[in-house]
Amino acid sequence: MFTGLSAFPLTPLADDAVDETAFTGLVQQLAAAQVDSITALGSTGSYAYLSTEERRRVARLAVEHAGTTPVFVGIGALRTSQVLTHLEHAQQAGASAVLLAPMSYQPLTDDDVVGLFGAVATHSSVPVIVYDNPGTTHVTFSTELYGRIAELPRIASIKVPGVPADPQAARARVSAIRAVVPEHVSIGVSGDATAATGLVAGCDGWYSVLAGTLPAPALRITRAAREGRAAEATAESERLAPLWRLFAEHGSLRVVAAIAEQEGLAPGACLPLPLRGLDDEQRARLARVLGDLGLTRQR
Amino acid sequence: MFTGLSAFPLTPLADDAVDETAFTGLVQQLAAAQVDSITALGSTGSYAYLSTEERRRVARLAVEHAGTTPVFVGIGALRTSQVLTHLEHAQQAGASAVLLAPMSYQPLTDDDVVGLFGAVATHSSVPVIVYDNPGTTHVTFSTELYGRIAELPRIASIKVPGVPADPQAARARVSAIRAVVPEHVSIGVSGDATAATGLVAGCDGWYSVLAGTLPAPALRITRAAREGRAAEATAESERLAPLWRLFAEHGSLRVVAAIAEQEGLAPGACLPLPLRGLDDEQRARLARVLGDLGLTRQR
Repeated sequence: MFTGLSAFPLTPLADDAVDETAFTGLVQQLAAAQVDSITALGSTGSYAYLSTEERRRVARLAVEHAGTTPVFVGIGALRTSQVLTHLEHAQQAGASAVLLAPMSYQPLTDDDVVGLFGAVATHSSVPVIVYDNPGTTHVTFSTELYGRIAELPRIASIKVPGVPADPQAARARVSAIRAVVPEHVSIGVSGDATAATGLVAGCDGWYSVLAGTLPAPALRITRAAREGRAAEATAESERLAPLWRLFAEHGSLRVVAAIAEQEGLAPGACLPLPLRGLDDEQRARLARVLGDLGLTRQR
Repeated sequence: MFTGLSAFPLTPLADDAVDETAFTGLVQQLAAAQVDSITALGSTGSYAYLSTEERRRVARLAVEHAGTTPVFVGIGALRTSQVLTHLEHAQQAGASAVLLAPMSYQPLTDDDVVGLFGAVATHSSVPVIVYDNPGTTHVTFSTELYGRIAELPRIASIKVPGVPADPQAARARVSAIRAVVPEHVSIGVSGDATAATGLVAGCDGWYSVLAGTLPAPALRITRAAREGRAAEATAESERLAPLWRLFAEHGSLRVVAAIAEQEGLAPGACLPLPLRGLDDEQRARLARVLGDLGLTRQR
């Protein structure tokens, strides 16, 4: 279940409330595209900005509209007791697994992080995905910390940040992680621009921002890499370089939000304030890039 | 109102709930010590970890138990609408001002930050303190951004991070900020280890972690600096160097929490999990430092 392509849909807002129609539309699109799993309430799903009740509702909607596609649900929060509440709600909603990023405000020690995952591992009755996202959590996982956490019960997968661009360095990085985690724990790459490299280097899956809004190109890359057509995966990722440049410049969330808005998958200004979307000039550039890449109206 | 010493009390927890007795005890101690203001629900007050209802209650308790000492209340949150809710509650509680740190999960642009402060400035009927705390918010304020925000209505003060240790460099830094903010906006230093230097360099006040638990030494530094006895302020701060080293090593919050626990001002393990307090060895070292500095039972 923790291999292949996991697509992270947005949780679009309209007037500061979850746009349930837009959200369920995104989930249905992903199920229809046959992604391997859907991760609701990831960073792309703005989990950190939503209330407990909004998150409970979004988790239910995701499971209800995903058909037979497994749904993973993000349960991160700043306080352990809040995380456990989200865990409980995700389980009640029927999540196949939960995804936990160690959010931080005060910097966390490794012992804090292990304690947090330990609490979740103890209370969870579903598999747990370790979500390493230093750009948002400001927690740096050492390889040793992966090892400590992967030993806990229920840990099923680790979502690692982008791998080095050099294929050999990427392979070395994936091997180093593999060496410290039990065999049943899958390694999934994130950082969409390096996903092809990561998959070719031996990652089991891709936790993908892009796939949450535009599953087709992400599926092409994943299928090619997983079926041994490494050159094809790499070529498709290289073709998307102009898009990855926009991700790097504005953050992937702002870019996919603008794509969803442009494609009619989300209402205008769908991000939670204070996050402003792209400005008009940036949107025009994005539209040109999508057009050049043949990625508009690809549904 | 935005000069002198503002003391940031902890919000101690016991069994994952606010220990109201301990909190009101801290507030009463600060009022009795005659600090110039009390900032409830600062970073030291764990605002980021508390629920809306907990924060509403803590704001009320602070104002009720502070006597005539002005109370400022932290209103930060990840989503603008949540910030406005906290603003409303702080005003209802009788806060003399509110303190806003631009919390982030997704990185914020300068325009996002200005938009957030603009929303608060528009809705607030009390003065607003700009809370620049890059170690927790991961937002970097440029001097130019101070200037943009300080122009908004209701902005009364800027809480700046630690100044350079070199007195001349500190003076240059304070002058550079002063040059871009209107005269009615005060500049308060934080980063306790550099507070004496900051006050001597021309800061109007000190937003202090230490003062929330041990007001006496912070008052000595502040009074000396504000009354032109620069050498005395600097000497007292230098005397506290062993304490500042512990702040740097473990984070000021963990250290003051351990002090409060040791002094009977807070229950054991008073921080919100996943934050673990100091371990036994660290506590023993802290106790020795406090003993050597004559800072135990100083109430």
